[in-house]
Amino acid sequence: MKSGPEDHGASGAAGMSHLQSDEMAPDELVRRTGQVLERIRATAPRVHCLTNAVAQAFTANVLLALGAIPSMTISPEEVPFFTASAQALLVNLGTLDETRKEAANRAVSIAAGEGKPWVLDPVFADRSPPRLTEARRLLALEPSLLKINAGELAALGGGASVPDLSRQLGLPIAMTGAVDEISNGTQRLRLANGHPLMGRVTATGCAAGAVAAAALAVEPDALVATAAALSIMAIAGEIAATHASGPGSFVPAFLDALYGLEAAQIGAHLRLA
Amino acid sequence: MKSGPEDHGASGAAGMSHLQSDEMAPDELVRRTGQVLERIRATAPRVHCLTNAVAQAFTANVLLALGAIPSMTISPEEVPFFTASAQALLVNLGTLDETRKEAANRAVSIAAGEGKPWVLDPVFADRSPPRLTEARRLLALEPSLLKINAGELAALGGGASVPDLSRQLGLPIAMTGAVDEISNGTQRLRLANGHPLMGRVTATGCAAGAVAAAALAVEPDALVATAAALSIMAIAGEIAATHASGPGSFVPAFLDALYGLEAAQIGAHLRLA
Amino acid sequence: MKSGPEDHGASGAAGMSHLQSDEMAPDELVRRTGQVLERIRATAPRVHCLTNAVAQAFTANVLLALGAIPSMTISPEEVPFFTASAQALLVNLGTLDETRKEAANRAVSIAAGEGKPWVLDPVFADRSPPRLTEARRLLALEPSLLKINAGELAALGGGASVPDLSRQLGLPIAMTGAVDEISNGTQRLRLANGHPLMGRVTATGCAAGAVAAAALAVEPDALVATAAALSIMAIAGEIAATHASGPGSFVPAFLDALYGLEAAQIGAHLRLA
Repeated sequence: MKSGPEDHGASGAAGMSHLQSDEMAPDELVRRTGQVLERIRATAPRVHCLTNAVAQAFTANVLLALGAIPSMTISPEEVPFFTASAQALLVNLGTLDETRKEAANRAVSIAAGEGKPWVLDPVFADRSPPRLTEARRLLALEPSLLKINAGELAALGGGASVPDLSRQLGLPIAMTGAVDEISNGTQRLRLANGHPLMGRVTATGCAAGAVAAAALAVEPDALVATAAALSIMAIAGEIAATHASGPGSFVPAFLDALYGLEAAQIGAHLRLA
Repeated sequence: MKSGPEDHGASGAAGMSHLQSDEMAPDELVRRTGQVLERIRATAPRVHCLTNAVAQAFTANVLLALGAIPSMTISPEEVPFFTASAQALLVNLGTLDETRKEAANRAVSIAAGEGKPWVLDPVFADRSPPRLTEARRLLALEPSLLKINAGELAALGGGASVPDLSRQLGLPIAMTGAVDEISNGTQRLRLANGHPLMGRVTATGCAAGAVAAAALAVEPDALVATAAALSIMAIAGEIAATHASGPGSFVPAFLDALYGLEAAQIGAHLRLA
Repeated sequence: MKSGPEDHGASGAAGMSHLQSDEMAPDELVRRTGQVLERIRATAPRVHCLTNAVAQAFTANVLLALGAIPSMTISPEEVPFFTASAQALLVNLGTLDETRKEAANRAVSIAAGEGKPWVLDPVFADRSPPRLTEARRLLALEPSLLKINAGELAALGGGASVPDLSRQLGLPIAMTGAVDEISNGTQRLRLANGHPLMGRVTATGCAAGAVAAAALAVEPDALVATAAALSIMAIAGEIAATHASGPGSFVPAFLDALYGLEAAQIGAHLRLA
């Protein structure tokens, strides 16, 4: 948990033997997740989100429910100022257009220059060749975290596994799905929380990228920050599902669960795969 | 039900005598509506939506609640790829801008070339001359369905009725309102379901266009597909209203109702005018 | 209450002595607020909203819940037509881009030419120099109301108070916060309603600007219209909070409260600071 990919010059069989979830005891992950949540609430990090048109309002509401402060402009002229006064950046490639590409260039340049964490989420890169090209271009700028799903992994990594692609690219990757898999190339965590209703509501995955950015603003260990962010989202989803009659009532219940999430609930729910 | 407008060279009184709702028995419409709903859930059609900024998130959530898979990008560069991998297309002219116009051109070209159904919804064409011009241009490209309200019918059709305009244009039309009227030029259905709260929530009409596109992806008879789509929306609205205290609580209840809608509820609620 | 800033050539101590909330008896404000609400419901004013991408859907739903009719396009080509057929205009500078700037120019030109009320909300002008420049440019076009928060007041007014800046600019200002302060330069009202959950949901402030525009469409006294609009929002927020478990359930409860708001609730809740 204390080493990044750059600490391990060699990959391969020896490296792979370390890729076990049980490198981090569940209790330790519960503790660190609670800590990330507390820090977000205590410090209210500003997160600038370049995200798709569908996800903007929900993403802002997720961040506000957690206690972070969202800003959402995609105007290339303004993005540098908002990024400069934020503590983290999300670059989500959904509904990608020329304005968003230019905004991403400028925002990433500021974030990289100031050492601020930024998350890349190449939504649907597997369905659109220009988007895949853009995702590759941004990957070369070394995001703090690449957040993908199985389809996007296949498009970006060929047949590579998450840890393999993480080593190749030299950056942490989170692959979301029924089981979330996170790796920094040498370590791997597999998280088993979540609920199917999360897939019946638009933008839950996109919002998770913003929460990961908020977590990276308050926790320097990318594996821990990412695991905490995805666990917070997935556990809130489980809690919300117990109050929901469908995807409609799930949304308010989910935001309420994020807002009220307590350390004890994290302890009771968190499950490694 | 089995003939399109092109089967009838002559309109007028003889044609009009066929324009009766009772050409389709209510029981038959109930059965076909249930079939459309089942097929959407079973096949999860991809629906690419070029829709207005206000409606994007709600439309995506409506499609997800029903079991369809939405994509929403309006980037002209990407739209061809998303349309090519979708089973149906929605072109909604709300918040129309140059990017959306160019995206519509490209998307419609793909859909027409591949014989995929596409729905045109010229929102507020009666309030903006450039939008009316754009609506007329797209109509010439022969959408599978034109979805309008009374004001838009007046602007597009002069004094023509729905069946008359359908014959003139040679395509099916659905006019939504307190009573929904659907015609393919030779047949007409009038549906009496719905609830006033649907008019107090933004984008319910826009989302209905997306549901019609999803229905056209799974049911080749445009009259049946459209009647099923509008009935599904209107019946879910009636069910939701029984759980709602106003337009705010109506929205989650409506999405829940779409998600859980059962054949028996369709049978109990569906009403022809 | 009956005089605008232009009726007072001199500011300073004498003018300041009039800046008391108790110039308007609470009962009178309750009565006028109820009147504004009734008029919105009775006349259904059309409000064209140039607002940010995050706030568009929520703003439309707030206006619909109150009984007003929103339109939201930002296309420069179309904005003149929508503004010409609207009774009021909102110009909100969130997610500002070139299209929105051009649209604002055209819309304001129509509104000013036809004497229609328009509200300027320079969201986050304190975080982005280009946005501050744009805010100043639009201020010179004399909006009917400037709606700001404390950060935006500092950026736009230096150290000036709300009444001072109102006199300098010659237009009414509403500063929202834990206490809302409204001044037309000679009179000041301080409103103490509201609930912290309103700050945990995106776009409540932006929607308040749209409600102020709707109120200005039905009430010529800007101080009264603005106080009524902010009171309606804040009281609905208080009522909603009693039904909410967090920011998620707050949103539907808030829209329901706006929809069902009664004169008696205004009387029971309204508080001057």
